Amino acid sequence: MSTNDEVRTAIAALLRIGEPGDGLLRRLVDDIGPVAALAIITAVAGGQSSSDEAVAGLASNGTGATAGGAVAHGELGGAIERWSMRVDDEDGGGDLDKVARLGGRLIIHGDAEWPSMLDDLGPAAPLGLWVRGAAELGVVLTRAVAVVGARAASNYGTKCASDLAWDLASRGITVVSGGAFGIDAAAHRAAIAREAPTVAFMAGGVDRFYPAANADLFEQILATGAIVSETAPGMTPMRHRFLLRNRLIAASAQVSVIVEAGWRSGALNTARHALELSRQVAAFPGSVYSASSTGAHRLVREHEAELVTCCDDVVALIDDEAPTLFDTTGSGNAWAGSEGVDPVDDLDEREKICLNALSATKALDAGTAAARAGLTIADALSALSALDLAGLAERRDSGWVKLRKPQR
Amino acid sequence: MSTNDEVRTAIAALLRIGEPGDGLLRRLVDDIGPVAALAIITAVAGGQSSSDEAVAGLASNGTGATAGGAVAHGELGGAIERWSMRVDDEDGGGDLDKVARLGGRLIIHGDAEWPSMLDDLGPAAPLGLWVRGAAELGVVLTRAVAVVGARAASNYGTKCASDLAWDLASRGITVVSGGAFGIDAAAHRAAIAREAPTVAFMAGGVDRFYPAANADLFEQILATGAIVSETAPGMTPMRHRFLLRNRLIAASAQVSVIVEAGWRSGALNTARHALELSRQVAAFPGSVYSASSTGAHRLVREHEAELVTCCDDVVALIDDEAPTLFDTTGSGNAWAGSEGVDPVDDLDEREKICLNALSATKALDAGTAAARAGLTIADALSALSALDLAGLAERRDSGWVKLRKPQR
Repeated sequence: MSTNDEVRTAIAALLRIGEPGDGLLRRLVDDIGPVAALAIITAVAGGQSSSDEAVAGLASNGTGATAGGAVAHGELGGAIERWSMRVDDEDGGGDLDKVARLGGRLIIHGDAEWPSMLDDLGPAAPLGLWVRGAAELGVVLTRAVAVVGARAASNYGTKCASDLAWDLASRGITVVSGGAFGIDAAAHRAAIAREAPTVAFMAGGVDRFYPAANADLFEQILATGAIVSETAPGMTPMRHRFLLRNRLIAASAQVSVIVEAGWRSGALNTARHALELSRQVAAFPGSVYSASSTGAHRLVREHEAELVTCCDDVVALIDDEAPTLFDTTGSGNAWAGSEGVDPVDDLDEREKICLNALSATKALDAGTAAARAGLTIADALSALSALDLAGLAERRDSGWVKLRKPQR
Repeated sequence: MSTNDEVRTAIAALLRIGEPGDGLLRRLVDDIGPVAALAIITAVAGGQSSSDEAVAGLASNGTGATAGGAVAHGELGGAIERWSMRVDDEDGGGDLDKVARLGGRLIIHGDAEWPSMLDDLGPAAPLGLWVRGAAELGVVLTRAVAVVGARAASNYGTKCASDLAWDLASRGITVVSGGAFGIDAAAHRAAIAREAPTVAFMAGGVDRFYPAANADLFEQILATGAIVSETAPGMTPMRHRFLLRNRLIAASAQVSVIVEAGWRSGALNTARHALELSRQVAAFPGSVYSASSTGAHRLVREHEAELVTCCDDVVALIDDEAPTLFDTTGSGNAWAGSEGVDPVDDLDEREKICLNALSATKALDAGTAAARAGLTIADALSALSALDLAGLAERRDSGWVKLRKPQR
């Protein structure tokens, strides 16, 4: 009998109780729902039951965490203790009210506004997101690029970020960043100057503008864009929250562009998250004598980022310009030319899966394509040969690529 | 009864008669030798025989071009006409004397000084090289990196080239370039400042210092390095000779580094030659607002060059640091550790070939490795799996790499 309001209130409370990216809490919620999860934690906090009893209850229940197999008993007992210590007088309803007074809301999975790309984070996906601002988050993130980089940006890097964000905004691509000084602020400001929505993911609560010196910027972001956080209102930005905030930036964007980053810049952490999600990472070049570019150069040198020099380069990395093959509306297949003959129709299922696993912009070796497609290497090679013959893919020196237009 | 002197004199004459990179002349010489080839051409030039008679003579000879199958008859007749028009009063001996008076020499295949890596050019390899300078060419090119780029270099690019060449020279790596203004000159000058030999490949004769404004630089190169050309003394540098000269730079160097190059820079032609030879290409980053870096950025973006920012990055690309597997002296196998157990011993021939085809620094997809090893993809995949198990190679996201030290 959990109503939508009960669920939302429970998630609001759980966002205060858990830290961002708490996979154990997420799995408990997936298993028994947010309302039941919160009830167990508050019961332990109030002394109505011990954490051992709570775990035993879950085990005997048979439909809970033990049934799902996701939560190891020993681990869970300790986590419930930890969570219960953070249950304070203020409940989720209080946070909902507080954010509502600021014109904001909590969005949760199932809401129309929920940005589905965040589900790619799997068990690390947020339980919910606190959002302020005029933009509908799921809509503006449909086509988004992250522009991130050093706080201690050079004038050159600031100019690069500004030009890139302006050009992305001009093409209707939402600029996502972290609201920090330097590259982040330059990117947000340029998008706003272009009168486009931009999204800032915060490491602290959405009621706190951090850094405070960017308060004018955050006000402008609210007018057309969104300020988003998974931490509860009032919470302070802390190092681990920045690092976990970065996964939301990476997951929100189709490409994460590192404009300037020193050797150990936090922007490299965003790149790492993007790579783990198989999202595209790109980096801007700069002077080899600039410390602000060493991290960006390293990403390119180690083949973790594509070199980009302008918006066009970034857009070329957005795979999704090519509609997916399995677009059931049938309207989006770029290959179905005016002749009405679609070479894709001739493919068997394995070849279609393999074609879908390829990228038009990033060459993959046969092994990677096989892994992506879930095929054996032998099957992938046979499928790739068929795609080559059909003019739908080709092998270049750097690997296999999908062709945007079939070539026969 | 062609003596070594006769051969050398004939090649000197043929270098004047043919243009650089004349594959047909090269193949004729490969078939019948330089002395006989020159005799045929001079006979046609002197009217003693027609080109048709010359071709017929070659055909009936049976040991000549027709036997080799390399020279198509129709093509050869026209070429002999063309070559014969360039036979002038001055013979090869005159050129040899002229260059000798400048302290230079003609080196040909078989000479101790001949740089064997140029043979990788196949039929495009030069018949001989005019060389001036104190360095022994084959020796200084044993470990060489080409540093090339725009004539209209920026101060930034000049500084990059200078620092790179200095550091390469410090590590005993010969800097090869083209003696032009801008990047080339900066590279040569820094190597000289480091008191290291540097090699300049010229598009015109070695008796002509081009550009003349760099005459002081060329004099300094002669003192410890070498000035090299395949065009005859007195010949002027012309556009097609620059483009063909670039293949010698690319073939001489283990890595060709493009420091700055505009969108259509000649340095990109050197990169193209290097790629055709499966040599490593690297490029320096720069400002995205600098026209001088657009070509270098393009190479990296299109995965044709590795991004490098310093000498260390370049050295990491030099494959040959790892001795080849088939080093018959047995002394150079880095894998034969103190335990005396060499995992390479356990490999079958196909696996050894496949291992040799891999690079320790550049990941190859299975198809490319197969092509390099001359194996079918299926055979290559089976060999790669065996190498993986033996800890001699591993598959990364970007493809297969050879491991410098076996990992079990």
